[in-house]
Amino acid sequence: MDTIPPPVLRLIEAFSRLPGIGPKSASRLTYYLIRSQSDEAIELSDALKELRDRIQFCSVCFNITEISPCPICQSDERDRSVICVVEEPLDVMAIERTREYRGLYHVLHGVISPMDGVGPDDLRVRELIERVATGGVKEIILATNPSLEGENTAMYVQRKINTPGVKVTRLARGLPMGGDLEYADEVTLTRALEGRREM
Amino acid sequence: MDTIPPPVLRLIEAFSRLPGIGPKSASRLTYYLIRSQSDEAIELSDALKELRDRIQFCSVCFNITEISPCPICQSDERDRSVICVVEEPLDVMAIERTREYRGLYHVLHGVISPMDGVGPDDLRVRELIERVATGGVKEIILATNPSLEGENTAMYVQRKINTPGVKVTRLARGLPMGGDLEYADEVTLTRALEGRREM
Repeated sequence: MDTIPPPVLRLIEAFSRLPGIGPKSASRLTYYLIRSQSDEAIELSDALKELRDRIQFCSVCFNITEISPCPICQSDERDRSVICVVEEPLDVMAIERTREYRGLYHVLHGVISPMDGVGPDDLRVRELIERVATGGVKEIILATNPSLEGENTAMYVQRKINTPGVKVTRLARGLPMGGDLEYADEVTLTRALEGRREM
Repeated sequence: MDTIPPPVLRLIEAFSRLPGIGPKSASRLTYYLIRSQSDEAIELSDALKELRDRIQFCSVCFNITEISPCPICQSDERDRSVICVVEEPLDVMAIERTREYRGLYHVLHGVISPMDGVGPDDLRVRELIERVATGGVKEIILATNPSLEGENTAMYVQRKINTPGVKVTRLARGLPMGGDLEYADEVTLTRALEGRREM
């Protein structure tokens, strides 16, 4: 006799399809929501629906936004001659938190990864090249992750841009703040030595 | 400049209110749903709404159900003289999976835990006593967890029932299948010795 009511099963399945949530966590979340006195389940349900209804990708930089072009692309206070190329919308938020960068962004939505079947055409590379071709861009900062895929993607984008007058730069690699030289891996230490600066 | 659109923030907040999901996992889940091509967000939203609309607690045993009384309480094939008392609906499913138990259930919805501010009145103990008082019950199996709170709750319920003709039993404690005597804790080993049976 199967005693789990179908709506409960359905929610457990929906939760367990999310990354990092296994069947056990999915059950736990579901039973937590059944027990919870407040309207957490309805709030989560509404938030999910609102996400689908109101969030889109910016037609210029492909960051997530409620209005397109996004506030950053529309802003008069941003330096339109610099484009920072990132993998994900979360990377935009990370860079914005520094409050140091005043240029625009371009979100690739992934990295080139043949193992996962992701090629250059699955990313927003073509759109980036079109943005550069319209002129006015002086610098492209490649801010993909310092991983194998991130490096490969950066190299691919760099070769594709190759436009006179457009400088292509890459974020500095080196020791992270609070890091320990003793425990730094060889690649990080090599990059830190290569990128050393006069004090 | 805050670049996270409010609907995204709202979903991150709703996710991070769930147990075991911190702010970082909440962001990751949200951006996963933004990126996902399929209708996962809508499916999850609908499943949550359906849960709230269709799931209720059985008026007899307080297990989760779509109809009340639940299929187990309504079934003619179950032994109505035995009630197994558990903490959570998940425990009912665990016992049902054994296919060994043919009696009814009673879900307390928690354990007595003064540290968390949960007293006997927050559990469905009174309703259990009323069920016993209506007669026909021969055995109450206390199947709360073998934890400090579970043991205390079992003892409390046992004292409260105290009805002539009603046997109160507790699930056996001992070594789990596949367990290793060498690594068993003292309490488990003590219980296993106390509960030893003739072969």
